[in-house]
Amino acid sequence: MSFSEYLVSVRKLNNIGRWASDFMHRRASVAEHSFSVAHISQMLGVIEENHGNRVDWSSLYRKALNHDVVEAFTGDILSHVKHRTETMKSMVNNIELLIAEDMLFSSMEEPYRSRLKDFMFDGKDKTLEGQILRYADNIDALLECLNESRLGNKIPFEDKYHEILEKLKNSELHSVAYFVKNILPDLEKGTE
Amino acid sequence: MSFSEYLVSVRKLNNIGRWASDFMHRRASVAEHSFSVAHISQMLGVIEENHGNRVDWSSLYRKALNHDVVEAFTGDILSHVKHRTETMKSMVNNIELLIAEDMLFSSMEEPYRSRLKDFMFDGKDKTLEGQILRYADNIDALLECLNESRLGNKIPFEDKYHEILEKLKNSELHSVAYFVKNILPDLEKGTE
Amino acid sequence: MSFSEYLVSVRKLNNIGRWASDFMHRRASVAEHSFSVAHISQMLGVIEENHGNRVDWSSLYRKALNHDVVEAFTGDILSHVKHRTETMKSMVNNIELLIAEDMLFSSMEEPYRSRLKDFMFDGKDKTLEGQILRYADNIDALLECLNESRLGNKIPFEDKYHEILEKLKNSELHSVAYFVKNILPDLEKGTE
Amino acid sequence: MSFSEYLVSVRKLNNIGRWASDFMHRRASVAEHSFSVAHISQMLGVIEENHGNRVDWSSLYRKALNHDVVEAFTGDILSHVKHRTETMKSMVNNIELLIAEDMLFSSMEEPYRSRLKDFMFDGKDKTLEGQILRYADNIDALLECLNESRLGNKIPFEDKYHEILEKLKNSELHSVAYFVKNILPDLEKGTE
Amino acid sequence: MSFSEYLVSVRKLNNIGRWASDFMHRRASVAEHSFSVAHISQMLGVIEENHGNRVDWSSLYRKALNHDVVEAFTGDILSHVKHRTETMKSMVNNIELLIAEDMLFSSMEEPYRSRLKDFMFDGKDKTLEGQILRYADNIDALLECLNESRLGNKIPFEDKYHEILEKLKNSELHSVAYFVKNILPDLEKGTE
Amino acid sequence: MSFSEYLVSVRKLNNIGRWASDFMHRRASVAEHSFSVAHISQMLGVIEENHGNRVDWSSLYRKALNHDVVEAFTGDILSHVKHRTETMKSMVNNIELLIAEDMLFSSMEEPYRSRLKDFMFDGKDKTLEGQILRYADNIDALLECLNESRLGNKIPFEDKYHEILEKLKNSELHSVAYFVKNILPDLEKGTE
Repeated sequence: MSFSEYLVSVRKLNNIGRWASDFMHRRASVAEHSFSVAHISQMLGVIEENHGNRVDWSSLYRKALNHDVVEAFTGDILSHVKHRTETMKSMVNNIELLIAEDMLFSSMEEPYRSRLKDFMFDGKDKTLEGQILRYADNIDALLECLNESRLGNKIPFEDKYHEILEKLKNSELHSVAYFVKNILPDLEKGTE
Repeated sequence: MSFSEYLVSVRKLNNIGRWASDFMHRRASVAEHSFSVAHISQMLGVIEENHGNRVDWSSLYRKALNHDVVEAFTGDILSHVKHRTETMKSMVNNIELLIAEDMLFSSMEEPYRSRLKDFMFDGKDKTLEGQILRYADNIDALLECLNESRLGNKIPFEDKYHEILEKLKNSELHSVAYFVKNILPDLEKGTE
Repeated sequence: MSFSEYLVSVRKLNNIGRWASDFMHRRASVAEHSFSVAHISQMLGVIEENHGNRVDWSSLYRKALNHDVVEAFTGDILSHVKHRTETMKSMVNNIELLIAEDMLFSSMEEPYRSRLKDFMFDGKDKTLEGQILRYADNIDALLECLNESRLGNKIPFEDKYHEILEKLKNSELHSVAYFVKNILPDLEKGTE
Repeated sequence: MSFSEYLVSVRKLNNIGRWASDFMHRRASVAEHSFSVAHISQMLGVIEENHGNRVDWSSLYRKALNHDVVEAFTGDILSHVKHRTETMKSMVNNIELLIAEDMLFSSMEEPYRSRLKDFMFDGKDKTLEGQILRYADNIDALLECLNESRLGNKIPFEDKYHEILEKLKNSELHSVAYFVKNILPDLEKGTE
Repeated sequence: MSFSEYLVSVRKLNNIGRWASDFMHRRASVAEHSFSVAHISQMLGVIEENHGNRVDWSSLYRKALNHDVVEAFTGDILSHVKHRTETMKSMVNNIELLIAEDMLFSSMEEPYRSRLKDFMFDGKDKTLEGQILRYADNIDALLECLNESRLGNKIPFEDKYHEILEKLKNSELHSVAYFVKNILPDLEKGTE
Repeated sequence: MSFSEYLVSVRKLNNIGRWASDFMHRRASVAEHSFSVAHISQMLGVIEENHGNRVDWSSLYRKALNHDVVEAFTGDILSHVKHRTETMKSMVNNIELLIAEDMLFSSMEEPYRSRLKDFMFDGKDKTLEGQILRYADNIDALLECLNESRLGNKIPFEDKYHEILEKLKNSELHSVAYFVKNILPDLEKGTE
């Protein structure tokens, strides 16, 4: 059994920085990113509920908390590599699964093994919670771009900002539309 | 309404370092600490369930995620100040509530105001989830002490390690006992 | 006797950063701040003397050098907490005294104990030297705000700049008026 | 034509750190690693010449200088991912070629395009210079492990040290044997 | 014999930062600077060849790689000190030679001693390769100034930028003129 | 008149690190070093007074505060360069004076010009205060060496520690002997 490897892996996310090849004024670690994504998910969830939708909170928190743990094993593969083609994407997904299996799960006893594995690979699916996670991930990246631009680091973060904003505008989630219309303008004015 | 201030506050936890006055090889931000506490809480929760206890996952995740957000408003008050006397502790608690009220909630509309306020001040109570949070907080501090000691930074982290370990040994939670007996020895041997 | 604890405490000021919760391009440590305040005090003192006032240099240097040492014991309590109300301010002052007593002075022999204690708590009083220290402290904060703004970090440092400038303009010290009129304009033009 | 993209890419190697997921006391950038590998290659080349072998210096320097530039496009893929299987290795090689083509060479005029492409993908082949590069790359990693271990960071750097040392001992190059026998013992004793 | 001291010295260039007394958003180490200068030299060399000039590649790479190694022994003497007067310049050159002799070469056997010494003090002479190195050194400094200015750090880097640009405009090298006319405009537009 | 250049110069000491070419776990800035030297001087002064000697406090504080300001103009010349020979030492002293004259004093009006110049070049003379400064400078370096050694960074800091300790043991000052006998043992045991 090896929860110890699991804890060690989670803590490695403190060492891995986001956006590896670009200069950043403030580079978040993957752990900080995940924490922020969890809070943004919580915010979107509250807005969805207020709009009348039912949120499975346990599932939402779990997805947000666990969605990037696998990066402890694979390192920071730049997203333009990861998302280049569908073939590459599924290649990367396979290798992630294989490596996590080898480095973590193979030495774990049941039932812990199955449970942690479920946690780690239960991500951005079609459920409301999976969709909230997807957009919370985008919103955190958007906020990082906004912050870098504000501090004068406009290349490449200004372009990335507009690229991500387009994705948000195309979302069908009520809470994402709410964010774009009611929250983002204040952030752009510079509350941060 | 101002979710924007809320998001800005959450991101400030990236800027605030733990253990402010001591040298550390690797100083975690409050955001990284909270992320780690959430994962440790999840681990303890899984162990409690396997032991037959019922865990309210939604409550557990929420507590872990939100328990230190108020530090964005008050800064890093060293814990020996905070916990010096019961009087000081309640003074600090009061000021935290007042400041959060002033800086965040006063400008928020209902129902968001009440919900976020509940999230932020629903911490280490007597419920199983509150108790798991309390010990997860301790375990994260223990792991930080272990890591610093391992890297040669023995003062003051070796003493703090033993102090925290005593607290864990006095816990009545099954999962904490399990951690001390089955997981900690591997971590001490140096999986990290 | 324990000058060793005293030396260790002074060196802890290298670890504690200013303005804990805000992003800064260049975060000064409390030690660097104190060094700068001492130089600004020296500059204001020279101007006061040239204006015909008598400066007690020994007192002025001592105040500047020692005014933030107590932060080694209490950590970085955000100033909006500290200065919120008169009650809170005196609460914080009390706790500072208590903690310094406990952690440092209780183990020191006389006459060293009395002397260091006098040094540490002899701050911004009504004397010319106390007033110079008060404004030197403000001027250093002003320069930090100016530098961050210049580097593009305008929130919150532009607002803080104007807030501090108002305080300086209300000072009755000749040297502070001289600074605002004859030195600050060059700094704003960007000598730094 | 776009030497500008080329220069920008080279400078991105300052931002990318080595050994992404592990804590390091001193994390070298990929640029610093490449610089060190070039110097180690030069040293091995001098030793080979003194042993009577002919070194093509132009080729040796070129290989060392250019061997990691492609990482500016792909980011820091952890080497246990890269070298896991032959399939994965060739997958990664392919993607590197495709991405460099897309992001850099496609917008370059001849003859610059061909020349830079030759530089970038002319690496650890069977020539003496290719072999020197291979082992210089290993020796730099060995020195990093030695340095981390010396500073108390023994996990995982002590194990990695011995793993790399085995590779060096199996080398057929005279200069590598010379390094292991005559230079490494001094480094282990702690000249650094 | 002591290649070990040599390797240790080369690695010290990772610790020494450029432009010591000025704030920088991204401070390159001397190792990173040297790596960049080698790549810029390679680029200028390719352009010279395309223009019909013959480049001694082995000499060019060697000069670029080794031109700042001596800084490991002398530290970061600010260039306005170094280049103040011809007397000071030759004083600094003498001391560099003396110190390298003492700290490195005196303990080395021949023929390694002579070879490394030749490498280290064979710099910016009148040959084409020496001239390319001179301007590559300037171009790297120019790119650093451009990057700092772009990020909002205009003092002193905007003035330094124009100062260096003047030097480049006065160069008689075809490749430098090509850089100023065909490559720099893209960099100024902000590819980086 | 230009107090603005003076203030800017003082703040540059925040950017300049000590012991430039060596890896350090915690590298103090020249500003932090000066602050620490001022506190050590104050401590030695108190001990001298208690021993019956008369201390000119104004002179002592002034010397400690101002003794390294000139480094803002010359950068971090490694001390083994500076102190190599008497000739080099006086060469460096001359250049320091010339540069400070040029960069700072030439644009200052009297009486400020004379006063600041006196402050800056009134250092380690034969007076009691000059001697206290000399040894306070050594003690701060000793404490840095002790701290690095304690954290596992023994090369070169263990040797430097013993080298500096010898200097302290040869001091004729009562307060230095007191430090070595009564304070240092506690620091070595690890109060820090």
